Amino acid sequence: MVNPSLYAAIDLGSNSFHMLVVQQVEGAGRTLAKVKRKVRLAAGLQLDGSLDQAAMERGWDCLRLFAEQLQDVPAGQVRIVGTATLRLATNIDVFLERAEAILGHPIRIISGEEEAATIYQGVAWTSSGTGRRLVIDIGGASTELVIGEGASAALLHSLNMGCVTWLHRHFPGGELSEAHFDRAIAAAQHELAPVAARYLKLGWRHCIGASGTVQAIQEIMMAQGENEQITLAKLNRLKARTIACGNIAGLHLPGLTPERVPVFASGLAILIALFDTLAIDNMVLAGGALREGLIYGMLGARQDCDAQERTIDSLIARYQLDRQQGERVRHTALAALKQLHPELDQEAARMLARAAMLYELGLCIEYKRAPEHAAYIIRHIDLPGFTAPQKGLLAALLLNQRDDFRLEALQAQCALDTSRAVLLARLLRLAIILCLRRTQGTVPEFRLAQQGTRLTLTLPAGWCSGHHLRASELHAEARRQNELGWPLEIMEA
Amino acid sequence: MVNPSLYAAIDLGSNSFHMLVVQQVEGAGRTLAKVKRKVRLAAGLQLDGSLDQAAMERGWDCLRLFAEQLQDVPAGQVRIVGTATLRLATNIDVFLERAEAILGHPIRIISGEEEAATIYQGVAWTSSGTGRRLVIDIGGASTELVIGEGASAALLHSLNMGCVTWLHRHFPGGELSEAHFDRAIAAAQHELAPVAARYLKLGWRHCIGASGTVQAIQEIMMAQGENEQITLAKLNRLKARTIACGNIAGLHLPGLTPERVPVFASGLAILIALFDTLAIDNMVLAGGALREGLIYGMLGARQDCDAQERTIDSLIARYQLDRQQGERVRHTALAALKQLHPELDQEAARMLARAAMLYELGLCIEYKRAPEHAAYIIRHIDLPGFTAPQKGLLAALLLNQRDDFRLEALQAQCALDTSRAVLLARLLRLAIILCLRRTQGTVPEFRLAQQGTRLTLTLPAGWCSGHHLRASELHAEARRQNELGWPLEIMEA
Repeated sequence: MVNPSLYAAIDLGSNSFHMLVVQQVEGAGRTLAKVKRKVRLAAGLQLDGSLDQAAMERGWDCLRLFAEQLQDVPAGQVRIVGTATLRLATNIDVFLERAEAILGHPIRIISGEEEAATIYQGVAWTSSGTGRRLVIDIGGASTELVIGEGASAALLHSLNMGCVTWLHRHFPGGELSEAHFDRAIAAAQHELAPVAARYLKLGWRHCIGASGTVQAIQEIMMAQGENEQITLAKLNRLKARTIACGNIAGLHLPGLTPERVPVFASGLAILIALFDTLAIDNMVLAGGALREGLIYGMLGARQDCDAQERTIDSLIARYQLDRQQGERVRHTALAALKQLHPELDQEAARMLARAAMLYELGLCIEYKRAPEHAAYIIRHIDLPGFTAPQKGLLAALLLNQRDDFRLEALQAQCALDTSRAVLLARLLRLAIILCLRRTQGTVPEFRLAQQGTRLTLTLPAGWCSGHHLRASELHAEARRQNELGWPLEIMEA
Repeated sequence: MVNPSLYAAIDLGSNSFHMLVVQQVEGAGRTLAKVKRKVRLAAGLQLDGSLDQAAMERGWDCLRLFAEQLQDVPAGQVRIVGTATLRLATNIDVFLERAEAILGHPIRIISGEEEAATIYQGVAWTSSGTGRRLVIDIGGASTELVIGEGASAALLHSLNMGCVTWLHRHFPGGELSEAHFDRAIAAAQHELAPVAARYLKLGWRHCIGASGTVQAIQEIMMAQGENEQITLAKLNRLKARTIACGNIAGLHLPGLTPERVPVFASGLAILIALFDTLAIDNMVLAGGALREGLIYGMLGARQDCDAQERTIDSLIARYQLDRQQGERVRHTALAALKQLHPELDQEAARMLARAAMLYELGLCIEYKRAPEHAAYIIRHIDLPGFTAPQKGLLAALLLNQRDDFRLEALQAQCALDTSRAVLLARLLRLAIILCLRRTQGTVPEFRLAQQGTRLTLTLPAGWCSGHHLRASELHAEARRQNELGWPLEIMEA
């Protein structure tokens, strides 16, 4: 018996095998299980190109685990792919025959280009931002490079280098010397040389890294209290600290998991080569890659609107938000922003619009502290299409939607400077009060003007005496903003 | 234009007017707005029994606020009731005529008995527990007493005393002397005398207090770090601290809001009289009363199952949980508990069952920290039918459903002793692993035995080698429990 709402993607990588099981809920995927085993398949590739018996056994053992859960997923909703090591192994048939018998599903060995294209789909689905993006995924035995825009990949390659193969080739005996690092970096630069010029010529706006190497580096940076942007300077400092540990057996860095230790130096060397050769300024971690690309392909993902809009739509459905009310608040808040800044700041306007659509998110938990609950949800939820700074701003705006201001959240976010974030919060609060009636045609015409921090809201003549509740709320709001040194004047025309 | 999903209840009380606006979502009410104004109507009752003009004006002003939002609620989904002061006022017609014109809806002046019955419905809807409950609501000018069980009230009265009338009658000049307190308490005892014997004779198991007085006392106790149980000893200490302040103008207690200050001493005196006369051991705060009773009456609330089950059903719908999977885990966890304790501990079994039904709650936010999210939601959500200690236990179990144990949460909850809570967590974790396949007929027959803290789980012969993923998870779980000094042995028959 299978469960018709389940989907599974399995990726037989050169370093790890992964299984992702997802349930479709209101058009979005809800992750139910992630199972991962370090199989280190690439370590079993012999000089003659065949995969040794021990590596195959490790692989089959892992597949026996996956197989148990896979039985419950409809056959048409399973995708299993093999990548670099399986592409290279000369005795692949031996491995596949038994592997498919264990899993009860076909395994597709995908080409490097197909792998790169699928990774790009997974990244595109989970990332936002306009303009071209460079996507890099360092696997165990291959590294994928893609430049694309929106849902389309424009240039892609799969290179024969990875953190497992580079470990064996360039760090013999696990020695973490400057010389070994330099040789590993030079070898990676050599692999990159034939394709680098085409990437540099096409160019990109954002650089996104997938894979365990990039994740491990981000975790180390977070453990040090640094921000999530990876730069060449940070990578070089990390290289020096790694060398100082002397040997892989003695490699300890706060934030580095024991599992990642063996392939950390080799992955780092490849990443440094990429930053150097492609002159990458900074890179952020992807929200998804190969497995997500496989899953979203099956979920019949809409490609017709951007990732942020899809995410907002899905949240509205999953949390049963009142869409008309969100649109009313969004319309009112954007109208207010437009009166102050006729040549709209696009990014600020977009974030204000998103916050307006989601402002009632916390009501699904409880009324009294609903703004805190909304901020909690946004800080923690998977939010495909939003960067970490955008999530921080969104959470800060939702937290500041009513009652006393929580300035620290507006100051802590790093998507906008504090004064612009404060202005957005003030506009969102006014829009929510003006839309308090929750019905069409009840929002008054208004004029909003700004002089320094002073806002003047002008309502139709006589409006306040006909709308006691909103007038009372607006005056209470003016007192709150005045107390913080942001004068808010409520007038009638 | 009205919004067909909205419901509103307005309560024209003797101290405050309240409006509650609720949206129906998946059979449950989602609070959208609470508006409250201290109108102090009872303060305007004159010696001749009429309401003075100033009090009426304060009331009408407040209704003008309410009226604005009320326009959007369908006429059949609005309930407006007046209570004690309006029952007593001889010139009620003057007030009502203008009030109804302002609101555009009829106002019903309900009798004390009808008020008591509606309060009871609101409490029954939001409280759990079996057996008879005593419900007490101290209003501005009346106090309601009810004994009931389940959805039915068995005995009810409305007494002519309240915190506003007692303030004016017994605390002249606002002086907080021992003598004034004693007089106020004695007067309340006098009011109680004619009915007390019938309540004492019928008896009750739980005592629940509604109203602002009880809420204020609980907030003061929380500010002192005390638990939420109100006892006579605590009330007497509070009385001494109140007297030490000398005068209402100088009354400052941590946790006491400025709004509540004027009527705090008078409400406290009435509550002390109730505890004393009815020999109440302890009281907890109700989750809802009059307004909730009005709303739930309109929502066509099911009365056929208990409040906890209704709440669980509503959460499953609102968070799109997989009900079959929850039932599978519940069945397995209860079977395990029953093998250890054939004469099941009813309360422990019920809490284990609730946790099993809700274990995937956190997935609506994100997979990685899902147990934390589930605990966050449970700690903060309105959970009609669950007491605060039950919520604490449920949150602790959900937090401990997988990965490393978080013992502090199991220790901090006060619904069960720690060792029983730990056992429930261990059983829940085993049940979740055994049900990992998420499909019918995939949970093995098992035997579970306990010797001290040692659990021995016996699976069918050969089961582990046919079920690799679950066997691997069970062994990892055994390592975790062993490390904490709770041996878990996995065997085959």
